[in-house]
Amino acid sequence: MQGTNNIRSYGYTVGTLPTGPLNSITDVPDVLVGHCTVEEKGHKTGVTSILPCSGNIYMKKPVASVYTLNGYGKTAGTIQIEELGVIETPICLTNTLNVGKVSDALIEYTKEICSRDEIPLRSINPIVGETNDSHINPILERIVNYDHVMASIQDARKNFQQGCVGAGRGTICFGLKGGIGSSSRILNYGRNKYTLGALVQSNFGRMEDLTLCGEPIGRKIASFLNPTQSKDKGSIMVVIATDIPLSSRQLTRILKRATVGLVRTGSFMGHGSGDVFIGFTNGNFFPEIHSETLLQLSIFPEEQIDLIFRMAAEAVEEAIYNSMIFAHAEVGTEGETYHWLGEFLPTHNIK
Amino acid sequence: MQGTNNIRSYGYTVGTLPTGPLNSITDVPDVLVGHCTVEEKGHKTGVTSILPCSGNIYMKKPVASVYTLNGYGKTAGTIQIEELGVIETPICLTNTLNVGKVSDALIEYTKEICSRDEIPLRSINPIVGETNDSHINPILERIVNYDHVMASIQDARKNFQQGCVGAGRGTICFGLKGGIGSSSRILNYGRNKYTLGALVQSNFGRMEDLTLCGEPIGRKIASFLNPTQSKDKGSIMVVIATDIPLSSRQLTRILKRATVGLVRTGSFMGHGSGDVFIGFTNGNFFPEIHSETLLQLSIFPEEQIDLIFRMAAEAVEEAIYNSMIFAHAEVGTEGETYHWLGEFLPTHNIK
Amino acid sequence: MQGTNNIRSYGYTVGTLPTGPLNSITDVPDVLVGHCTVEEKGHKTGVTSILPCSGNIYMKKPVASVYTLNGYGKTAGTIQIEELGVIETPICLTNTLNVGKVSDALIEYTKEICSRDEIPLRSINPIVGETNDSHINPILERIVNYDHVMASIQDARKNFQQGCVGAGRGTICFGLKGGIGSSSRILNYGRNKYTLGALVQSNFGRMEDLTLCGEPIGRKIASFLNPTQSKDKGSIMVVIATDIPLSSRQLTRILKRATVGLVRTGSFMGHGSGDVFIGFTNGNFFPEIHSETLLQLSIFPEEQIDLIFRMAAEAVEEAIYNSMIFAHAEVGTEGETYHWLGEFLPTHNIK
Amino acid sequence: MQGTNNIRSYGYTVGTLPTGPLNSITDVPDVLVGHCTVEEKGHKTGVTSILPCSGNIYMKKPVASVYTLNGYGKTAGTIQIEELGVIETPICLTNTLNVGKVSDALIEYTKEICSRDEIPLRSINPIVGETNDSHINPILERIVNYDHVMASIQDARKNFQQGCVGAGRGTICFGLKGGIGSSSRILNYGRNKYTLGALVQSNFGRMEDLTLCGEPIGRKIASFLNPTQSKDKGSIMVVIATDIPLSSRQLTRILKRATVGLVRTGSFMGHGSGDVFIGFTNGNFFPEIHSETLLQLSIFPEEQIDLIFRMAAEAVEEAIYNSMIFAHAEVGTEGETYHWLGEFLPTHNIK
Repeated sequence: MQGTNNIRSYGYTVGTLPTGPLNSITDVPDVLVGHCTVEEKGHKTGVTSILPCSGNIYMKKPVASVYTLNGYGKTAGTIQIEELGVIETPICLTNTLNVGKVSDALIEYTKEICSRDEIPLRSINPIVGETNDSHINPILERIVNYDHVMASIQDARKNFQQGCVGAGRGTICFGLKGGIGSSSRILNYGRNKYTLGALVQSNFGRMEDLTLCGEPIGRKIASFLNPTQSKDKGSIMVVIATDIPLSSRQLTRILKRATVGLVRTGSFMGHGSGDVFIGFTNGNFFPEIHSETLLQLSIFPEEQIDLIFRMAAEAVEEAIYNSMIFAHAEVGTEGETYHWLGEFLPTHNIK
Repeated sequence: MQGTNNIRSYGYTVGTLPTGPLNSITDVPDVLVGHCTVEEKGHKTGVTSILPCSGNIYMKKPVASVYTLNGYGKTAGTIQIEELGVIETPICLTNTLNVGKVSDALIEYTKEICSRDEIPLRSINPIVGETNDSHINPILERIVNYDHVMASIQDARKNFQQGCVGAGRGTICFGLKGGIGSSSRILNYGRNKYTLGALVQSNFGRMEDLTLCGEPIGRKIASFLNPTQSKDKGSIMVVIATDIPLSSRQLTRILKRATVGLVRTGSFMGHGSGDVFIGFTNGNFFPEIHSETLLQLSIFPEEQIDLIFRMAAEAVEEAIYNSMIFAHAEVGTEGETYHWLGEFLPTHNIK
Repeated sequence: MQGTNNIRSYGYTVGTLPTGPLNSITDVPDVLVGHCTVEEKGHKTGVTSILPCSGNIYMKKPVASVYTLNGYGKTAGTIQIEELGVIETPICLTNTLNVGKVSDALIEYTKEICSRDEIPLRSINPIVGETNDSHINPILERIVNYDHVMASIQDARKNFQQGCVGAGRGTICFGLKGGIGSSSRILNYGRNKYTLGALVQSNFGRMEDLTLCGEPIGRKIASFLNPTQSKDKGSIMVVIATDIPLSSRQLTRILKRATVGLVRTGSFMGHGSGDVFIGFTNGNFFPEIHSETLLQLSIFPEEQIDLIFRMAAEAVEEAIYNSMIFAHAEVGTEGETYHWLGEFLPTHNIK
Repeated sequence: MQGTNNIRSYGYTVGTLPTGPLNSITDVPDVLVGHCTVEEKGHKTGVTSILPCSGNIYMKKPVASVYTLNGYGKTAGTIQIEELGVIETPICLTNTLNVGKVSDALIEYTKEICSRDEIPLRSINPIVGETNDSHINPILERIVNYDHVMASIQDARKNFQQGCVGAGRGTICFGLKGGIGSSSRILNYGRNKYTLGALVQSNFGRMEDLTLCGEPIGRKIASFLNPTQSKDKGSIMVVIATDIPLSSRQLTRILKRATVGLVRTGSFMGHGSGDVFIGFTNGNFFPEIHSETLLQLSIFPEEQIDLIFRMAAEAVEEAIYNSMIFAHAEVGTEGETYHWLGEFLPTHNIK
């Protein structure tokens, strides 16, 4: 059984704010997502790439931020984001032990793009997030290579698949099958309409803690499945994209509210869960300028930022549910089964 | 109507871990809490003091940490805690604009104690937390003085009152009356029994967001009361005490999990809510040493810290409920009513 | 003997960049500095106030930042600066144990200003820095009161005194007399001229470490005076003001370079030295906005920020020398003498 | 011309504290350093590996810390060090764009070691520092591979080479040739003798800013060589090793004092210089423990930490000089010459 409908199809409405037309991170203008799923030689893993803007990212440098909720992880590129408040490559997600190889591939990709555009280049800060898919995938073998990364970038589109694809191919969540999930929220502000979208690679949580829109469904599932493992191992990567004109300081504050969505699903932020949140806005760019001029930026008023906090909390919560409901059951490396969330939801609800 | 029973009396069990005998922060050995409630000239405010250990705190210096979830607040003493990983005074809570006066009183108190014990003194780092009680109390007048602070310290005891007392006299929470609340959890570990307790000064949240043990009770209350204000203004102060031997780095990680308890009650960490969490353990001290020796410390294994994370999350969640259920209704400075949570719970449940 | 000339008068040129006309922090447009020196009942202490802009600071909210080099200090207001990236009061400097009282006075001041301007007020974040002047001043008695704070603010001017005045009345630096010092640097950028100024309250350093424009003069002084005390106790407060349009993230980076100036004078950032740097720009404001609009800000290009880093490093180094050369010798609480730096410089150099 | 003597051979004594017998980071018991210099197909780059302790690092987990002075860099592994306060692999240094490949090699190395020792493994946090050697090396081609990393680890020894070797093969410093340099300091404390050592990969600074033991030698060199480039581009990596029993919080404070050594050599912490400092002690380990016991740790008293601060400042300053004086002149990718520091020192001083 496999999910082909999002969590709203099952009658669950997350929060109160309006979603974008796709209810995904690609509702944000110019944001695209692509996957490369790697299924070969017993591997079940992959790469998911988020393209933050049109054109040459390295030249445009969207304003960005990172928030490390739990640093028990290996995400690449965080210290430069914190220092300079920008990103200059796509954001790639993969499994923990492939971060080095995917970083290297992102450097190669950027080198090629900049060579094509005749931009001189001395340094590149590749952004690579990860979770540990070793319950399903032989992670120590590090199968992901340059071709996979390029394939995921070339696959970038508005209507991308969710669930057991790309970097979500081998993840588990609340003891069930996890994956890639997404959601979005809309803000009508003055004469403008803004979008904030979240994408998660879900790989965390104890089964008995899963809460679905406030319903402690995990306890029921756990009493039914009686799982042996009950540690909150694994991690979650959250990417938040928006076109609201923000500063990197504001983005950090917004990323912190991803925690709200995470906790609402039942996480207690376990020790072994490396939780890193990356955010960017393509409503503000911060390119290199070598003439004696100033950049002109628009900035959202701090006093009204609660509007955005709520968008982030809701979008992350829903993205986590979507990562599970779009997935399908999978057998682990030790023969154990990771069930599909949909097995435990009343199917007659599906619209 | 006023609360005289904790939230468990109403049939609500928070989490699954065992509580201490008092189900309060004072279950931690040597920890005491005292209040001074200030009700004069139209003021409804006060001071709550947490004594972290027996003996001279300045000389013993319990290991401590601080985590600033939302820095839109005025807590005193945080940078030194972060640098040195210890506290050297009681922790006082009060309202926002009295932090300066209470800091000064804590200096005077420490000066007196050290003078009595013949300890030379050049500097003191007073720890003062706060939330903004201006909905009920004329906060700009800053009524709290040295005598109030001393009275709260002298009042320190194991069986302290919760609800509308001390620093909780004038706070509101989810649009209802907030206050001081507490809870504790027990850890049996090897041959030892450890305790972790939380104390909160609750002053945050939108009414419609209140969730009680997963039950979205705030929506019902809001539809009944139809409040006009719906901003998540205010703040929460969380103090976590324990006797588990921890490092300050570990305490910081544990304090972060107070966020889990906070979110479970319905907070989305609003912009205007200055949320500061302070933690200490009297299982480890870090006194000044002037001879050429080393300190010998026991440290809890990192790999098992999830046990403590869950204690912190549950104790903070329950402390927030207790802060509300021990309170009573109150009239605000503009004539509006802040109801008591108990009005909306089925009273026949009370044991 | 007393200093009435700055360090350049003695033939020492700090760095290579041009200074402003006053060579002080008040070269930054609209920045004013005032002192209240408290000399009564054996006290030698005071307050120094920096006014960051014209008009109502609370309403305008200059963009600001804080960098805590060594958190062994008690500066008030830092967590809100870090969260929101603005200040809303003057910055007051005083001695360590008066921070509470000066914070309270700043609240009263802001309350009066906002009452006069009919601005409703619920909360205020007073900014108070400090160093420990207990070698000269009976610090435990906390003599500073509201009147002193108000006097320092009312004294605010362009041509303020340096040396043993205000918050610098009782400080020592490199075992000599320290105090308040200032310096500035000019940036010609496109068609604009910008200014960056530093003000320090110097109270740190071991005598033998003092280095004056690269000259290890401290060793000579120490071999001559043969001081008993040789710990780097005390602290330094640095305030950096500018009118360059910056973000708070950029200001933090610039504040870090105050460290360069500090180290050049001979500091090794001793354990006991609480070193807090506060920066603001009145080239960008971030007021509360309640309509659905965006703020329009100019931002300096990151790629050229080295220009500003060098200004900060030089201005802080020179401000420290000025704090010493404008001072005069003083007798400590135990009868010891804190000499004036000028005693050890060739006086025939004075222009 | 090439350096075969350290900076003391030229009559320059850095600071006042005693050095270890090798005056290098390997004076710390059990610490070893190895290089692999890559000189092929026009490449001049390499890998330098620091082994922090004897035995299986992954199992022992030395206490560690990281301090990011300037995050404009790509060092891998920092967030987990900050979260957990330990390292579990050797520390490898290389050039900026090879971080991904070296990370991957370190994973492979650790996998092999743990396979050999029959330790089950699901995740590894490789620590890889870098600076940008693109002035001398065609960095975009990323020549470094697994064999180079393994060769550097297998080369690990007490008497390692300094200068243009390993990760220092292609770096420049103050416009001259930089490289790998090291130094150490000894602490006699009670009945114990402790060592602190520093190793740097120097790749920063403007020529005119170079200061050698307080002597502004860079100005002379610059007026002689008249270089065109005068930006502080590049980076510095600092590794500090010790056997003093410290906590990770204390290590962070000590790492900050590496800044003192850095500034003393003339750095103003330029924008483009990604400066990351990593520290560890093999005087404390923090292994995984799964039984219900506590770790027993010794901790150095905070009040005497100035002793260590001075060691760190001096060792880093001297390590930078050594990185230059052990180097040799080199031609850059555009034909320009990077001179050897020794050319500008009076050679008759050499002992």
